[in-house]
Amino acid sequence: MGVIVVNTKAYEEGVGDRAVELAKIMEKVGKEYDVEMIIAVQPCDIYRVANETKIKVFCQHIDAIKYGSHTGWILPHAIKEAGARGTLINHSEHRMKIEDIFSASRIASQIGLERIICASVVEIASAVACFMPEYVAIEPPELIGGDISVTKAKPEVVSRAVEAVKKVNEKVKVLCGAGIKDGKDVAKAIELGTEGILVASGVVKAKDKEKVLVEMAEAMVR
Amino acid sequence: MGVIVVNTKAYEEGVGDRAVELAKIMEKVGKEYDVEMIIAVQPCDIYRVANETKIKVFCQHIDAIKYGSHTGWILPHAIKEAGARGTLINHSEHRMKIEDIFSASRIASQIGLERIICASVVEIASAVACFMPEYVAIEPPELIGGDISVTKAKPEVVSRAVEAVKKVNEKVKVLCGAGIKDGKDVAKAIELGTEGILVASGVVKAKDKEKVLVEMAEAMVR
Amino acid sequence: MGVIVVNTKAYEEGVGDRAVELAKIMEKVGKEYDVEMIIAVQPCDIYRVANETKIKVFCQHIDAIKYGSHTGWILPHAIKEAGARGTLINHSEHRMKIEDIFSASRIASQIGLERIICASVVEIASAVACFMPEYVAIEPPELIGGDISVTKAKPEVVSRAVEAVKKVNEKVKVLCGAGIKDGKDVAKAIELGTEGILVASGVVKAKDKEKVLVEMAEAMVR
Amino acid sequence: MGVIVVNTKAYEEGVGDRAVELAKIMEKVGKEYDVEMIIAVQPCDIYRVANETKIKVFCQHIDAIKYGSHTGWILPHAIKEAGARGTLINHSEHRMKIEDIFSASRIASQIGLERIICASVVEIASAVACFMPEYVAIEPPELIGGDISVTKAKPEVVSRAVEAVKKVNEKVKVLCGAGIKDGKDVAKAIELGTEGILVASGVVKAKDKEKVLVEMAEAMVR
Repeated sequence: MGVIVVNTKAYEEGVGDRAVELAKIMEKVGKEYDVEMIIAVQPCDIYRVANETKIKVFCQHIDAIKYGSHTGWILPHAIKEAGARGTLINHSEHRMKIEDIFSASRIASQIGLERIICASVVEIASAVACFMPEYVAIEPPELIGGDISVTKAKPEVVSRAVEAVKKVNEKVKVLCGAGIKDGKDVAKAIELGTEGILVASGVVKAKDKEKVLVEMAEAMVR
Repeated sequence: MGVIVVNTKAYEEGVGDRAVELAKIMEKVGKEYDVEMIIAVQPCDIYRVANETKIKVFCQHIDAIKYGSHTGWILPHAIKEAGARGTLINHSEHRMKIEDIFSASRIASQIGLERIICASVVEIASAVACFMPEYVAIEPPELIGGDISVTKAKPEVVSRAVEAVKKVNEKVKVLCGAGIKDGKDVAKAIELGTEGILVASGVVKAKDKEKVLVEMAEAMVR
Repeated sequence: MGVIVVNTKAYEEGVGDRAVELAKIMEKVGKEYDVEMIIAVQPCDIYRVANETKIKVFCQHIDAIKYGSHTGWILPHAIKEAGARGTLINHSEHRMKIEDIFSASRIASQIGLERIICASVVEIASAVACFMPEYVAIEPPELIGGDISVTKAKPEVVSRAVEAVKKVNEKVKVLCGAGIKDGKDVAKAIELGTEGILVASGVVKAKDKEKVLVEMAEAMVR
Repeated sequence: MGVIVVNTKAYEEGVGDRAVELAKIMEKVGKEYDVEMIIAVQPCDIYRVANETKIKVFCQHIDAIKYGSHTGWILPHAIKEAGARGTLINHSEHRMKIEDIFSASRIASQIGLERIICASVVEIASAVACFMPEYVAIEPPELIGGDISVTKAKPEVVSRAVEAVKKVNEKVKVLCGAGIKDGKDVAKAIELGTEGILVASGVVKAKDKEKVLVEMAEAMVR
């Protein structure tokens, strides 16, 4: 079963009530098409989304800390208790020290949080795969935030990342983390060997979110 | 009216259900003694505490961002929407760049979040007072997290911080941000010219939280 | 006596032999026009420039450390021993935590290094002036690195920064840290109340560095 | 041929004239015992040590930058021009973002600087080996800076790191980066499969530096 991860970032359209509404649409589409849906929200929205929907809620980041004196850092245990099922780690907008990626990943694993570790290039995808996360999301910088989609750009970086990650550990799944605009891109990402996608503005800022999600889900299960 | 700010940090005793319970005790004691109570919690606990109690909920940190592509950073607008009334800034466990202190403080002000900016020494207290926050919390490093209380240590740093901050702007209130263990310390802090206290383990890790809060509130209104 | 501070950044034209050559030109022009010349170079170039010229060499940054286990951080004592006479602190390309600005500034002062602390806006200029550096350089973001010069843009931010800094401490000198392209800009900066300029590409990337420096020095002493 | 890397950190005993003196002793001992000697110094000391001795001089850190507007960051091209032959990357006292480790490592490689990337645990050693540096230095946290030496502590972490790194790429050499106090520790490190050591206070703070270096070099070639 493919997975669609929607990252709401700090978009106005993905905060508070809008995060809950989006999660409800995702829940509906996911059920209809048998596609796993994950929404990654601001930490303050985890509790609401987890309580008002049944889809998996992820945090967008965690810090490499355990219970203690860590004012203002995001505590994995706290987001877990609020209802989070996993977290993004090392997103391109929140790069982390390698030691912290390792530690945060280990703490998450210990308390049962799933991990999507992001990586920009094949070498870094290999490197973070050494930490045995559930997912590695490959985000080629040339595809991030621009208008270029993975179907148009040279897609070798994605297929090479899949190969590199699987060489480290076959169980680690690869997500296509950039360049996804529509169903065609999703189909291409799956064709390139990824097992899902990580998408943000393409869904969160869409006028008709359900339509976009349906298109993507259809492309995934085809 | 004096103010008691309780920072739950990432303490196990101050997360999730325990954050809500603590906030309820604070609400009760605050009402009884006419002391303003503020609880600063992990971002994922803001929504619950804001919805289940009437005391002011603060975030422990915000990032200097507005709506946009800022995955994993704490968005002031999001915590506001979740119910936060203010935030700590530059806590000793989360020091910030001066530019970010200024920007975060300005963004908070624009959307109506109160600000407690922390400072370790008199010169830094003066500096952050230039950003016109509601509060500056002075946290002398020699008093942080140790067993030394402000009543026993030389308290000049606190009174000098009050003087320095008021010289920059009379409206900025000063909190005593370290060395507070009991009612005597609160009385001393008020005597030194502060208008409230910022406390963490002294309350959060206390066996009888209500008793400690009552003692502190009594000392504040005496 | 006005001061011209040239920051070579990490420009190819300002590293190694080229740093030494530039410093020699600055020495010559400075002597001719009785203008103080300071060159801020990469740490690895301090020793050479200090030994081959007589102008003041500054480091572009120091870390807030003393002798000890601080691998890879820039030790103020080491650059001092290599011949540095001062340092930039909190440059717009290297923003620092407020605690580190304070500590680095204090360490520099203790060992006799002069300090130029950079600030982007009036409020931050006031704040860093509280740390009593020799200089505050005001770098309005709208003037940095662009084609807009301080003579064309609204210059109130510079004159207001001068006023704000002098209000904190009259002895702190203000430099105009952005928007300086030629002699006219220097004259304007002085007219606005600054006591010198901090310039980078305008000099370092100029084809005829001596000509530009002469023009700036002339404008300063006129 | 084994390699001894001496990191002078920010130790008073390893700065300026003392860095040059230490490098001269290393040069002498290295020649006598046919052991490669590398000294990693503060950036401002690279030029002198490179010009006054023939041993390889490394920087203690580089930033992931090329020529450009990067005030105050350590430019790989600049330290190369000053005489550096390589650099430490991600030392335990200067942890870096994974993207910066990759980029700094790639830039260094492009301009002919050798790289020693540090790692605290086996998983991170594997990860950084994916970036194909000349060396990975394993620094088990339980051995850093303490009195415990690698001969006394359970040494599995070192031999497992060697195995893990070689599995990624056989050409990457492993250094024992902590727990080295004397000749016995060096012999143990070599026995565990490393091809050299990274040492700091054990040499830099020794009263008789030559004696310690001779003992270590002897142990290495035995």
